[in-house]
Amino acid sequence: MDLLEAKRLLETGATTPIALLEEALERAKAFQDRNALAYLDEEAARKEALALTEELRRGQVRGPLHGLPLTIKDLFPVKGMPTRAGTKAPLPPLPEEARAVRRLREAGALLFAKTNMHEIALGITGENPWTGPVRNAVDPTRQAGGSSGGSAVAVALGIGLASLGTDTGGSIRIPAGFNGVVGFKPSYGRVSLEGALPLSRSTDHAGPLTRSVRDAHFLTEILAGESIPLEGPQNPTFGVPLDFLEGRLGVEVRKAFQRLLEDLPSLRAEVREVALPLPGVYEVYTRLVRYEAARIHEKALKEHPEGFSPQVREALLAGLALTEKDYRDAVAEREALRLQLVKALRGVDALLLPAQPLPAPPLGTEEVELESGRKSHREAFITLTLPFSLLGVPTLTLPFARVEGMPVGLQVVGPYAEDGRVLAIGGWLEARLR
Amino acid sequence: MDLLEAKRLLETGATTPIALLEEALERAKAFQDRNALAYLDEEAARKEALALTEELRRGQVRGPLHGLPLTIKDLFPVKGMPTRAGTKAPLPPLPEEARAVRRLREAGALLFAKTNMHEIALGITGENPWTGPVRNAVDPTRQAGGSSGGSAVAVALGIGLASLGTDTGGSIRIPAGFNGVVGFKPSYGRVSLEGALPLSRSTDHAGPLTRSVRDAHFLTEILAGESIPLEGPQNPTFGVPLDFLEGRLGVEVRKAFQRLLEDLPSLRAEVREVALPLPGVYEVYTRLVRYEAARIHEKALKEHPEGFSPQVREALLAGLALTEKDYRDAVAEREALRLQLVKALRGVDALLLPAQPLPAPPLGTEEVELESGRKSHREAFITLTLPFSLLGVPTLTLPFARVEGMPVGLQVVGPYAEDGRVLAIGGWLEARLR
Repeated sequence: MDLLEAKRLLETGATTPIALLEEALERAKAFQDRNALAYLDEEAARKEALALTEELRRGQVRGPLHGLPLTIKDLFPVKGMPTRAGTKAPLPPLPEEARAVRRLREAGALLFAKTNMHEIALGITGENPWTGPVRNAVDPTRQAGGSSGGSAVAVALGIGLASLGTDTGGSIRIPAGFNGVVGFKPSYGRVSLEGALPLSRSTDHAGPLTRSVRDAHFLTEILAGESIPLEGPQNPTFGVPLDFLEGRLGVEVRKAFQRLLEDLPSLRAEVREVALPLPGVYEVYTRLVRYEAARIHEKALKEHPEGFSPQVREALLAGLALTEKDYRDAVAEREALRLQLVKALRGVDALLLPAQPLPAPPLGTEEVELESGRKSHREAFITLTLPFSLLGVPTLTLPFARVEGMPVGLQVVGPYAEDGRVLAIGGWLEARLR
Repeated sequence: MDLLEAKRLLETGATTPIALLEEALERAKAFQDRNALAYLDEEAARKEALALTEELRRGQVRGPLHGLPLTIKDLFPVKGMPTRAGTKAPLPPLPEEARAVRRLREAGALLFAKTNMHEIALGITGENPWTGPVRNAVDPTRQAGGSSGGSAVAVALGIGLASLGTDTGGSIRIPAGFNGVVGFKPSYGRVSLEGALPLSRSTDHAGPLTRSVRDAHFLTEILAGESIPLEGPQNPTFGVPLDFLEGRLGVEVRKAFQRLLEDLPSLRAEVREVALPLPGVYEVYTRLVRYEAARIHEKALKEHPEGFSPQVREALLAGLALTEKDYRDAVAEREALRLQLVKALRGVDALLLPAQPLPAPPLGTEEVELESGRKSHREAFITLTLPFSLLGVPTLTLPFARVEGMPVGLQVVGPYAEDGRVLAIGGWLEARLR
């Protein structure tokens, strides 16, 4: 059941907000081992659900999300809930509620829990020594991915119908792929991050994790506060950046992707090879984000270094050691990479590539085997997603295959601001991949 | 005579490189009062022109610019010429020749002189206490504009057929408008700035100043090292950002622009009002550029502050006083402005607006009168051009009217990477405005 199906059931009276919440709470209990939630006050949630149920009975509707239970990644302040962002270090001052959360609340959503995450969003495994690891929805011995790991797991397991996450280098798309749900990183600036804990202000994106592409569209319109028309071609032309993917996939994901490419023509889509040379993109991204992140957490890093886990502290210290010249260079180099991406997108409707080189690895994995040999976990996984957040273009992830019994995500990448096109093509793919 | 006409004459044997050079040298002498040139070695230029002439006679052609005399803004290193960038302060180390200059040289261009500029490109008047002011091509009591002022004046007066300039906030477009020539600021990254003196690496653009739109296209292809197909609509739809222009024009330029808008429908163009809200764009730009510029010149500023004129030193010191937090904020704010511009461009082929609020003012002008009252020179002039370099989109300036007997420039602004569309529409306009 997706969000829009639940909405229909609410409208026909076939269910109620309190019934939807009880279902979510039961699922949370049943899957407690997955460690998806950072905060849940069942009593407060029931009280709110009953109020929403009563209003609905009287015909009062707060907005398009009235009574629909959603979760929120624990770096967005939510009224009445603590914000910890998966760390023990003190956070910079945050307001009572982030703007994106307010949008959901004003639309009537039942914001009933916060989700666990990679510490301060600086990492993609979802393993967190303070909260314990978030575990994969499909196989609890595997990683949930991150940083929005708890959000993806919650959505996959029905602990709420959708979740609000963030993505700086892949933090929506990687866990969405690992757990078999849909994740949408809108164009930079489309959804406000005001009031949320930043990681890299020039690269952070907020977006939904959902059970369907239509839900992702529905939520993005509410989060953005504007209509996003679904304008896609009847028969899409996909650009596939084989040069960019060279050596960057695992053998089985390569095969699954190859099969998809072979199937697409029979679905009346065209597949074209495009060049996507992005020299140095990994280094540019790493410098930009670590530099900015280190400055956001500078005070805590100096006064309470013990509040960060070693992996995160090390990355922040590396960011602190960067000079502002390093940063300025990275800012300019990002601008120069933009043209390469725009060229790759010319003449095609969207780029298509896997969201992950391998299925979710076992907890504790530090290195993995790609076609090109052994790589660190970080480089192997983040390289496929980071260019599209670094360059701000709308990117959707949806499940497209199973490898080792685990879901694997696909990315649909469109030109900047063409969120409606990416979502329309995502819907096209979803209908045909099922 | 434009570059392509001269090229045709060379090819038919109706002229020779040395004849073209002699003509340029005569014009340079006749208009010495304009102070367009920073460096000219007549003897070396004649020697090179004679070699090119001899080669041509033997049927040897170096490339598409064989024997065509061009000038180069004095912040690009050119083999055999000094680089001073209009300052007495020491410059950071520069290579022997900038990549864009090498591209012109390898295409056979006769690079015979360097042009005067606003000191270190940080200013738009073209007034320079070290070299003396560059004077307007049409009226020597008025400003040439800047920072590529010498380039624009040279092109306007036939001191060479075209020039290579740079534009960070309007430095190609403002002098092009002031002197009645064509200026093209390509998409960010399209033309390499490798080896040139930077002002703001994340915002600097290189591009041509020419006597026709077709020349701008021709040179941009050579500078970029790639084909840029002219893909424009038969009957363009122009978006006019009246909200952005509110209060930002002088009375007479407003009238001239209004007349153009009234004439366009009879030329089968459609004119549509579009919204272009760019809150804080002037401040974001100013912070970004001053911060970066101050760091480029930091050593000179500390060791030889007397090498900078007071106006430039003051701006650099203001940049040095900015914190890296100010800079990081500006980097993020630039990203957020991008979406506004993309939205304004949706559904239209290009934006259309004046390149200047007033005709070139008299030398020494510090304040001017706009519809909304008195403004500083800088704010009045740079506000119309800076958004399109800050956001990296291709923008062409061409003359469209006369006010007080002086030329006034128009800007054609297209989506990022759509350089070919902007140039095609520019050609459409040029043919109809003549």
